[in-house]
Amino acid sequence: MAISFRGVFPILPTPFLPDESIDVTSCGAMVRRMVEFGVDGVTILGVLGEANRLTDGERFQVIEACVEAAAGQIPVVVGASHAGTKASCELAKDAIVRGADAVMVTPHAEAVPSDDKVLGHICTIADATDAPIVLQDHPGSTGVHMPLDLVLSLVAQIPTIACIKQEALPSPPRVTALKAALDRPAPILTGLGALYGAFELAAGADGFMTGFAFPEVLAAMVNADGEGAFNIHHEYLPLIVFENQPGVAVRKEIFRRRGLIAHNTVRAPGVGLSKTAAEQLEHLLTQTFATADIQQRITPGTANR
Amino acid sequence: MAISFRGVFPILPTPFLPDESIDVTSCGAMVRRMVEFGVDGVTILGVLGEANRLTDGERFQVIEACVEAAAGQIPVVVGASHAGTKASCELAKDAIVRGADAVMVTPHAEAVPSDDKVLGHICTIADATDAPIVLQDHPGSTGVHMPLDLVLSLVAQIPTIACIKQEALPSPPRVTALKAALDRPAPILTGLGALYGAFELAAGADGFMTGFAFPEVLAAMVNADGEGAFNIHHEYLPLIVFENQPGVAVRKEIFRRRGLIAHNTVRAPGVGLSKTAAEQLEHLLTQTFATADIQQRITPGTANR
Amino acid sequence: MAISFRGVFPILPTPFLPDESIDVTSCGAMVRRMVEFGVDGVTILGVLGEANRLTDGERFQVIEACVEAAAGQIPVVVGASHAGTKASCELAKDAIVRGADAVMVTPHAEAVPSDDKVLGHICTIADATDAPIVLQDHPGSTGVHMPLDLVLSLVAQIPTIACIKQEALPSPPRVTALKAALDRPAPILTGLGALYGAFELAAGADGFMTGFAFPEVLAAMVNADGEGAFNIHHEYLPLIVFENQPGVAVRKEIFRRRGLIAHNTVRAPGVGLSKTAAEQLEHLLTQTFATADIQQRITPGTANR
Amino acid sequence: MAISFRGVFPILPTPFLPDESIDVTSCGAMVRRMVEFGVDGVTILGVLGEANRLTDGERFQVIEACVEAAAGQIPVVVGASHAGTKASCELAKDAIVRGADAVMVTPHAEAVPSDDKVLGHICTIADATDAPIVLQDHPGSTGVHMPLDLVLSLVAQIPTIACIKQEALPSPPRVTALKAALDRPAPILTGLGALYGAFELAAGADGFMTGFAFPEVLAAMVNADGEGAFNIHHEYLPLIVFENQPGVAVRKEIFRRRGLIAHNTVRAPGVGLSKTAAEQLEHLLTQTFATADIQQRITPGTANR
Repeated sequence: MAISFRGVFPILPTPFLPDESIDVTSCGAMVRRMVEFGVDGVTILGVLGEANRLTDGERFQVIEACVEAAAGQIPVVVGASHAGTKASCELAKDAIVRGADAVMVTPHAEAVPSDDKVLGHICTIADATDAPIVLQDHPGSTGVHMPLDLVLSLVAQIPTIACIKQEALPSPPRVTALKAALDRPAPILTGLGALYGAFELAAGADGFMTGFAFPEVLAAMVNADGEGAFNIHHEYLPLIVFENQPGVAVRKEIFRRRGLIAHNTVRAPGVGLSKTAAEQLEHLLTQTFATADIQQRITPGTANR
Repeated sequence: MAISFRGVFPILPTPFLPDESIDVTSCGAMVRRMVEFGVDGVTILGVLGEANRLTDGERFQVIEACVEAAAGQIPVVVGASHAGTKASCELAKDAIVRGADAVMVTPHAEAVPSDDKVLGHICTIADATDAPIVLQDHPGSTGVHMPLDLVLSLVAQIPTIACIKQEALPSPPRVTALKAALDRPAPILTGLGALYGAFELAAGADGFMTGFAFPEVLAAMVNADGEGAFNIHHEYLPLIVFENQPGVAVRKEIFRRRGLIAHNTVRAPGVGLSKTAAEQLEHLLTQTFATADIQQRITPGTANR
Repeated sequence: MAISFRGVFPILPTPFLPDESIDVTSCGAMVRRMVEFGVDGVTILGVLGEANRLTDGERFQVIEACVEAAAGQIPVVVGASHAGTKASCELAKDAIVRGADAVMVTPHAEAVPSDDKVLGHICTIADATDAPIVLQDHPGSTGVHMPLDLVLSLVAQIPTIACIKQEALPSPPRVTALKAALDRPAPILTGLGALYGAFELAAGADGFMTGFAFPEVLAAMVNADGEGAFNIHHEYLPLIVFENQPGVAVRKEIFRRRGLIAHNTVRAPGVGLSKTAAEQLEHLLTQTFATADIQQRITPGTANR
Repeated sequence: MAISFRGVFPILPTPFLPDESIDVTSCGAMVRRMVEFGVDGVTILGVLGEANRLTDGERFQVIEACVEAAAGQIPVVVGASHAGTKASCELAKDAIVRGADAVMVTPHAEAVPSDDKVLGHICTIADATDAPIVLQDHPGSTGVHMPLDLVLSLVAQIPTIACIKQEALPSPPRVTALKAALDRPAPILTGLGALYGAFELAAGADGFMTGFAFPEVLAAMVNADGEGAFNIHHEYLPLIVFENQPGVAVRKEIFRRRGLIAHNTVRAPGVGLSKTAAEQLEHLLTQTFATADIQQRITPGTANR
């Protein structure tokens, strides 16, 4: 499946049963609903997916359930980052064998960091598979700050880098700089829960790969003109900001309320939804959507403001 | 001057001339304009004030210019955090001698962190001065995570802690928990550029001590009811989010555009305003305020949406 | 197998073939030689074992090869730390099923750290298995600083904590404080490459669980009186210090030269032996051991000084 | 005073009275004794000097007392690092005005780190003064990892960089690499308490700029041949390792016992000498020096082993 990496590729949470085991049923249901919502693909086993809290065997369960549910209708991108280069290669190859359409990788923080180590790490992973690669640049979770030149060099050297997931801050000027300097038209998707979404699109981003629980809103932004994108972003910004609070509990609760997953369980040592967050979320969803059924696809512009 | 620590206490940037020396004239002008905007006090020499990039002599210039301009009409809170406990005591005492009405202090990250060190640090500073103390809890800049019990213990032991500047994330549940557990009614102000402002107020916060460049907007939120606060927050949220990008350049530029300071100069190694940010800010201010004169006090609810 | 956790439990590297795949043959050979060297047990899949660079499947290979080679003659302790509590439980249970005699666990750094999270993490792991647990306190690799009271509380609450691997700095006073405060006689082993070994023993430590490539030297220290331990430590201190340089390449090279493993391969993005380190090590081994055959068990006191 | 930056430049602690105020008398006494010990210069207000816990006024006191005591007999190098570039310039210029012979600077960790920021920071400081500059590369305290190319570029661009204080780990291969690549013969001094001293000298280092409390021992190493340096290092290695424990309390206590300073007071939130460390140090000094008077200049090779 050739993937354009333009549009919206939601980062999906990993659904757990109340005992924290993988909720395979919800994996499938969630992906099928994403197809209905019209997303351009899905990304699993990223930071939001609590990938770093899973055993390899659990990864395989999640990948297989999601790939099966996608059923070739939308591409499935699988996070394959690992502290070890060879292990990252193995996770990437395994994901492809299990039916993933692309893999997402990040550099890993080292005691003695260096650009050369990052270059070697990513190049080795790219050599291990023919699959398209999403290069994630998210210092907030990796602790690795890649200079612009390093990203450009990686894209120049590795033809299979099919997308840059640009989450280094401040993101809009970084998008502008990448667009101006890239020697081939690699698509740039942004993340960070779409907090700066309108500004990133205005700077030239090609869409979103992020965990905001209403991907149809982001799709409407991508499809609108600049003013339109700004207005849609503005409309949902309280919700985007609320989701931006650290932890994955709020997003999992919204996924649960949308009927996408059965439980909002977060894996320890992550923390679940606080009472304050639960109450404020309830109120906020009412303020944002009034009587609209959030289990259905939302149409931006019809929200109750 | 008895200070209520309710309402809005803007964190002010430190104005520089183009050669990065202190712009004393702008210090005074900025504070006088804040009085006109109706703020409840000002806070200088915080993180936004690039306090960590100043010599002690420059601190003194800034304090004296701001205190003189406040002219007793509003209290001036001065950041007095330092890696050394004794030095923090000296900065605090010096600020009071120069006319400050209160000091703001944070714990400092240590190679071997411990709650006892934080307790000792803050208690020693409190012993050094009779002045009211704002205890700032901002792990994002300090790297120090204070357990709730430690904050409660500090407030219980130190009667001169007059305010908690609550910026640990997620902030709304933390405000709720503090309000429920404090054994005396210490006011809680929040910061973080008011990103979560409506949610923090709903959780019981008493106001804001933060750098958002339109304090009159925050004051309107504090004075509104819950729904009203949410609506005002929503109205200005694109600007609040835009300002939330790392670095102080965007805020200094807004301060400049509002006529509060003469230059948007940031001290190295901090970075100035990028071209992308400058263009996006120009556009955003127009979207937010239409033809309103932002050099004057803004009245929320009249913005062009 | 009841384990006393007194004496010397070397932390073993994970041997790789030149292509970075697991060298199962060397796993077995290395463990059998450790038995010959008279160690009290071995610990695998710690930081030195590059555990964080392995897939789960590779872990299993290493565990099985080492357990088989130990053949019940010495206990095998297996590192089972993981960012996720449930995954750490699974790794621990799996290790026991594959024949491990005990597991070693650490807390994991969280975005919002708290003692309660650490307590919950370790207690949950302890609930998942009846096996003896080595509680590793190594802020240098985990980034987690456990207050003394937290360690005491864990030991008091979890009867299966059979050993504290004490690597918080400065270590000798910490050993003293633990010994004085523990409510049951939990053995304390120290690590850090034995850099402070004589001082830790003098403070009351029960032995070593560390990666120094000459465990028979550490055993001689444990069996000597204070003055004797100091003298042995002093004799080998240049080598201990040299090994203390960051990275695992030097230790793997010594293991290779001792005939314990076939290759000194380090997994990327870790770095291999530098030319300078190789030359200095060659020289240092000659200075330390003269013509003694380091492939055989060394007898401290006979070195050429 | 032209400075060769070869030999031994001890990093001196800042002496405090028991109330933590500057002990000006000890500043002078300590420097005069260093002259007697035959050092090639002294460095004040580094990390060991608790420089980050002093007010600017206290810095001035320390500088003036030390410069006066040096009386032109040995050069005085003054740490002038600061989070702000302009402030660092001011501290550097001020130090020179007060009689310092050179300044030592480091890059400062930034939220968004980049080599360009480091380059700009150091170049700006160099432009501000004609004085010789010691470029300190100590990631352990700064958190800044400078690629080798960046150090080379700084030395090439800034003719006043008179010395590299090389403390990036592992240090011996780094010394080798610098020596091979530098386009002018800039001297390289090493630090880290001389933990790797013999190996750094063997790799080509020109001497030491570090806090080990017996600089005459380091001088003897510099003046010996390779085997001799190794033997002297070995002789004192237990003491070097013991001093290497985190914190400055042990070093200050040795300075006190040597009669160099009057008190071992450490500034809060730093911690003083633990009971365990005090007892172990007492024992260790006896083991190392037997009945020799450590208040006098020590002659290596005569220690009681």
